[in-house]
Amino acid sequence: MRVYNFNGGPAALPLPVLQEVQEEFLDWQNTGMSIVENSHRAKEVVKMADDAQVLLKDLLGLNDDWAVAFCQGGASLQFAMAPLNFAPDGASCDYIDTGLWSTKAYQEALICGAGAKIAASSKNDDFTYIPGTFDFSSKPNYIYLTSNNTVRGTQWPNFPSSVPAPLIADVSSEFLSRPLDLTNFGLIFAGAQKNVAPAGLTIAIIRRDFALSGKKGLPHMLDYRTYIDNDSMYNTPPVFAIYVAGLVFRWLKKTIGGLKAMDALNREKAKTLYAAIDSSGGFYKGTAKETSRSIMNVTFRLIDASLDKPFQEEAKKEGLVGLGGHRSVGGLRASLYNALDLNAVKALTGFMAEFQRRRG
Amino acid sequence: MRVYNFNGGPAALPLPVLQEVQEEFLDWQNTGMSIVENSHRAKEVVKMADDAQVLLKDLLGLNDDWAVAFCQGGASLQFAMAPLNFAPDGASCDYIDTGLWSTKAYQEALICGAGAKIAASSKNDDFTYIPGTFDFSSKPNYIYLTSNNTVRGTQWPNFPSSVPAPLIADVSSEFLSRPLDLTNFGLIFAGAQKNVAPAGLTIAIIRRDFALSGKKGLPHMLDYRTYIDNDSMYNTPPVFAIYVAGLVFRWLKKTIGGLKAMDALNREKAKTLYAAIDSSGGFYKGTAKETSRSIMNVTFRLIDASLDKPFQEEAKKEGLVGLGGHRSVGGLRASLYNALDLNAVKALTGFMAEFQRRRG
Repeated sequence: MRVYNFNGGPAALPLPVLQEVQEEFLDWQNTGMSIVENSHRAKEVVKMADDAQVLLKDLLGLNDDWAVAFCQGGASLQFAMAPLNFAPDGASCDYIDTGLWSTKAYQEALICGAGAKIAASSKNDDFTYIPGTFDFSSKPNYIYLTSNNTVRGTQWPNFPSSVPAPLIADVSSEFLSRPLDLTNFGLIFAGAQKNVAPAGLTIAIIRRDFALSGKKGLPHMLDYRTYIDNDSMYNTPPVFAIYVAGLVFRWLKKTIGGLKAMDALNREKAKTLYAAIDSSGGFYKGTAKETSRSIMNVTFRLIDASLDKPFQEEAKKEGLVGLGGHRSVGGLRASLYNALDLNAVKALTGFMAEFQRRRG
Repeated sequence: MRVYNFNGGPAALPLPVLQEVQEEFLDWQNTGMSIVENSHRAKEVVKMADDAQVLLKDLLGLNDDWAVAFCQGGASLQFAMAPLNFAPDGASCDYIDTGLWSTKAYQEALICGAGAKIAASSKNDDFTYIPGTFDFSSKPNYIYLTSNNTVRGTQWPNFPSSVPAPLIADVSSEFLSRPLDLTNFGLIFAGAQKNVAPAGLTIAIIRRDFALSGKKGLPHMLDYRTYIDNDSMYNTPPVFAIYVAGLVFRWLKKTIGGLKAMDALNREKAKTLYAAIDSSGGFYKGTAKETSRSIMNVTFRLIDASLDKPFQEEAKKEGLVGLGGHRSVGGLRASLYNALDLNAVKALTGFMAEFQRRRG
């Protein structure tokens, strides 16, 4: 039985994509070998990776001012690459702190020797909201934010429009869930293991002129130019994850109909779940402030924390898995990534009502 | 039809492993989801990764003085991590230059600010041999070598026994092809895409005391301690590649019978191919000196370079693929990684004889 997978990531991927991967796993494109056995320099693989890049830029509506880099090391390595490239030698950069992942990114910038400063933070209220006012430095090299916060269940509804420097955003847990206006951005990056592909691929999308402004002389694998100049094939890239990502991009375009359509579906899912939480008379309670609620990661608590475990155990018996909150905060969380459909959410809200009837 | 895959990497993987992956791809271990959809924090995934580490150390006969780190970024990122950790702030380290990959590693050490020196090189004879004498620094922090050279087809038969510092080796293209005596080593690493797993996983095996001697305060993802202290789960690791690696480790142990047995099979394969080359009356000619010949990557040339293309094209029609030399040197190369069996080599030598009959 295929479960309803609410994991925070790695997470559910579209079933038709998984089926296609399975079907052609021993013989990819009539090469007589698996996709994982093909050389990354084989023309079929190079074309597959090129096509994936083109499709991705098409989905996001990006022109050639932008480059796609297929990196490795997760967002955690990007936390270092961003300051190493763009705030070297103590240069100024601003961080907006909205919880665990942006805090980590900020700390990594300090480790890398950047002159990093917190320009806004919602720490004073347990990271339950996205700040609306910012104390920017006078001449920062960039402004960093986390667009969606998996741990606290908050998400930027829109991004700061008046900024003194290019934005850099970790968009890992919302990547390709909605259209993104990248006008004020220099760089976004995303671990693929939420909405896109198996873990092991990090997609960075960077303005070419911003990439060129970066520090020269970094180790090759930490320099964005290395990826741009070599079409992400300076060394062997994570071919399998890129291949799955390409299939997911195609699914997003052909089956779903693009990011606007995906956004509408995602909003319907989130609305359904938040409505169930808000109408429970306090038995379930959302943890994020309403105006900052995430469409992707719905975090909530039970009226009584001792019910957390039974809730998850009984849900699992009903085929609803991955509902525990992040290990740093506990509580409950339902991640509603692209591949999870409305039926899954309805199954969850049905279970929630039933659980409340029995335990409320 | 499954081809005979002589790719230099990514390369052939054992068919029974690929079949198992395919079979359970939609529902791994009755979790109701794919291995690529499972959380890396799920107990089944944590156990899978733990088991893979244990099995790997068992294959190599390593005790608890050693730690396994599942990294990303390929050997190319290790080229930077090694000097950043172990030759920081201009500290002395020695490189033995046996061709493209060790040259790159040396250059990366310089980029990282290490006091790197070439202690021996076979550049004077086109990297056709492994040096036997070394001009070590008086107090280097480590000595670096590439144990098998995919481009030039050379391999260290044994490693320097009298060394003034721990050895660090890139063993990417021979990893798990033979037993390794790690007595004098501090660190070995290998991109998984030759003998072990899909691209996107780099396995580092490091002496714990050596890891602890490394520079403190590095970015987390560049510090070996981060991997050791968190069982390679500081952030999301490349789960799928680790999973396949674990299956390959089991195949090596149960089906093949361990690394000594694997070594014997590999030597038989290499012997068969070198014999065909050497007995061709000069129509085929090995490029590496005999005493330095690689068991894994057999590099050779045709009597007439204009035959390179027809050779590869006609071989491909016979289901023998991946026989081109590395793009930096041309010529021909047959990579005989673990998953490629003697039948493939016999098919190749049969084709070579036939090609010579027609074109010789």
